Amino acid sequence: MKLTVKRNIFLQELQTVQRAISSKTTIPILTGVKIVLTDEGLTLTGSNADISIESFLSKEDEKAQMTIESTGSIVLQARFFGEIIRKLPEDMFTLEVLDNNQVAITSGKADFTVNGLDADNYPHLPVIDAKNQIQLPVHLLTKIINETGFAVSLHESRPILTGVHFILDNQKLLAVATDSHRLSQRIIPIEQAAENFNIVIPGKSLTELSRSFTNEEEMVEISIMENQVLFKTQNMYFYSRLLEGNYPDTNRLIPTSFNTEIDFYVPELLSAIDRASLLSHEGRNNIVRLAIASDSVILYGNSPEIGKVEEPLNYEKVTGDPLEISFNPDYMKDALRAFGDMSITVKFISAIRPFTLEPTETDLDFIQLITPVRTN
Amino acid sequence: MKLTVKRNIFLQELQTVQRAISSKTTIPILTGVKIVLTDEGLTLTGSNADISIESFLSKEDEKAQMTIESTGSIVLQARFFGEIIRKLPEDMFTLEVLDNNQVAITSGKADFTVNGLDADNYPHLPVIDAKNQIQLPVHLLTKIINETGFAVSLHESRPILTGVHFILDNQKLLAVATDSHRLSQRIIPIEQAAENFNIVIPGKSLTELSRSFTNEEEMVEISIMENQVLFKTQNMYFYSRLLEGNYPDTNRLIPTSFNTEIDFYVPELLSAIDRASLLSHEGRNNIVRLAIASDSVILYGNSPEIGKVEEPLNYEKVTGDPLEISFNPDYMKDALRAFGDMSITVKFISAIRPFTLEPTETDLDFIQLITPVRTN
Repeated sequence: MKLTVKRNIFLQELQTVQRAISSKTTIPILTGVKIVLTDEGLTLTGSNADISIESFLSKEDEKAQMTIESTGSIVLQARFFGEIIRKLPEDMFTLEVLDNNQVAITSGKADFTVNGLDADNYPHLPVIDAKNQIQLPVHLLTKIINETGFAVSLHESRPILTGVHFILDNQKLLAVATDSHRLSQRIIPIEQAAENFNIVIPGKSLTELSRSFTNEEEMVEISIMENQVLFKTQNMYFYSRLLEGNYPDTNRLIPTSFNTEIDFYVPELLSAIDRASLLSHEGRNNIVRLAIASDSVILYGNSPEIGKVEEPLNYEKVTGDPLEISFNPDYMKDALRAFGDMSITVKFISAIRPFTLEPTETDLDFIQLITPVRTN
Repeated sequence: MKLTVKRNIFLQELQTVQRAISSKTTIPILTGVKIVLTDEGLTLTGSNADISIESFLSKEDEKAQMTIESTGSIVLQARFFGEIIRKLPEDMFTLEVLDNNQVAITSGKADFTVNGLDADNYPHLPVIDAKNQIQLPVHLLTKIINETGFAVSLHESRPILTGVHFILDNQKLLAVATDSHRLSQRIIPIEQAAENFNIVIPGKSLTELSRSFTNEEEMVEISIMENQVLFKTQNMYFYSRLLEGNYPDTNRLIPTSFNTEIDFYVPELLSAIDRASLLSHEGRNNIVRLAIASDSVILYGNSPEIGKVEEPLNYEKVTGDPLEISFNPDYMKDALRAFGDMSITVKFISAIRPFTLEPTETDLDFIQLITPVRTN
């Protein structure tokens, strides 16, 4: 195997697959990146217990200026290899497999010789057949991940809650995540014909996935197997394992009738919550208190040792019963950030029942739920 | 005490004195910032065991838009206070001391009440009289610190070596630092009349000092007392304790006759050393080897497990005996970074004697010394 290629283009591909490579793995070959060179181009692979990423650089890609002298394959320790490539002196570099899995990396006058591993010993990626596929624009999938992924549980006590639940049914794709204190659910229409599915994808895999996309505008094809999902773009295959087990029925958690409703402009509410949380973070309970009356809405934060804050909030509309309710401001901040720059309606039943947050404009099927904190 | 002031200007002053404030101190009042308001303006003070910083914001400073309603003083927990100021909703804010050292911080509709401490309990800063002063441009002092500070020892086994030795003598200011493996010495002419001095300033203080300057163009006045030094600019007083003890005589360490000399362009040598150190960092000894002959200069890095690198270096001129010498590439990288974009002459005696690095153009009195590593 011998190729010459543009250094910064190669580095981009390497950085993509490095998302799947951990230096902490107990399987030594998985600290490496698998490099396979065919007449079509270069494929890099990185893998860990949860995800595998395969990135393809075509020989036809002009910006890579690739010259293939002979095909072949090798595995190189990924972190170290990346550092070498990053520090080479010239724009182009040459990679050549010598005898005994030794690899020469040359650029300008610099001449590295590093030890590789036989690519035949690298684990095989799952084979995923072509059925059960849907296609989404990358920017839409990224948005769904950002809108739900933050609400997954970080505790392994209920592993199924560390994932996002995806259901394709009745030409709708539903994504929902909950850590049992808050919930976030987003639904989008899917007009393509595809078999229904019901899967739970680890939240961490989705975070890495959304960071791996390089082109917001392209389409991503999602294929599902029994215990794996594959996200495929033009130059990347991203595999994740699925979580096993039954996801709880979250639909019954979402209330439908309310006693108090109030409309906020998200960025204004977010900065007020942010200020109030400064004090709640210093206290033992980390709660803020919202007092809603017909003519005023006031937010309170308090820490006995440090001090307190009080802020009458700007709001767009309030209807229904007066209410005092306490909640964790960090859940509220996460929820508001997921909405972004829009107006939302917050709907309450009482001080002890979960409340919902939804876009005021109803063309967006996105709902969040936060459980309040009882203070007496 | 009550004042209204522009938030971002106040924050700048606070950030300056926060360099001296540690949240880890065992003296609770030193986690606070002392705020003193007089008819002239606002003084903030932060302090720890090593350094104290005082920052002054004049009432006349138009960009601060300061309104003083009543004078006074208070101490507020610095980190927390800074976070509040940073998150206030409006451009301006009002700070008012209420009863019992309570402080109201208001901006727009947000209304914080926090607990302060009596400013009378804050430790007094040393009083430094006006003798033994020299003045330097800020950019020159910063440069001297960058040229020497990196070479101080980080180990407390010989505390005196954790500082930079400054000697004013014979109208020259000499700054030298060594950790006993490498040394860096810079000398500048001082034409002002000042009493000679001989002091050792902690390296950490100098690092904080160089980061505290906001205006490269102004002058800094350096005043020395028995165990303190004061750096004074228009708006900042920066105090540091001095290290006690005798600094070793470093002058006798610097050799004066050599057998091999070679000229390099610093950025080129630095990037080659950087590449070679990739491999030496993986090995046990962290050394690279330089082989100098009359017609070639080659740099080698090696790690038995990972691989090796070999690079013929670009150089400007070589004279004297051929030589093979091994050294720690990290000392070399630090030294080269301190020179910056220039050509240097490296002078060797033998493979086991320290070698020197000096600017090739001799109008800059700056010399560095690196001890090689014996490999047999």
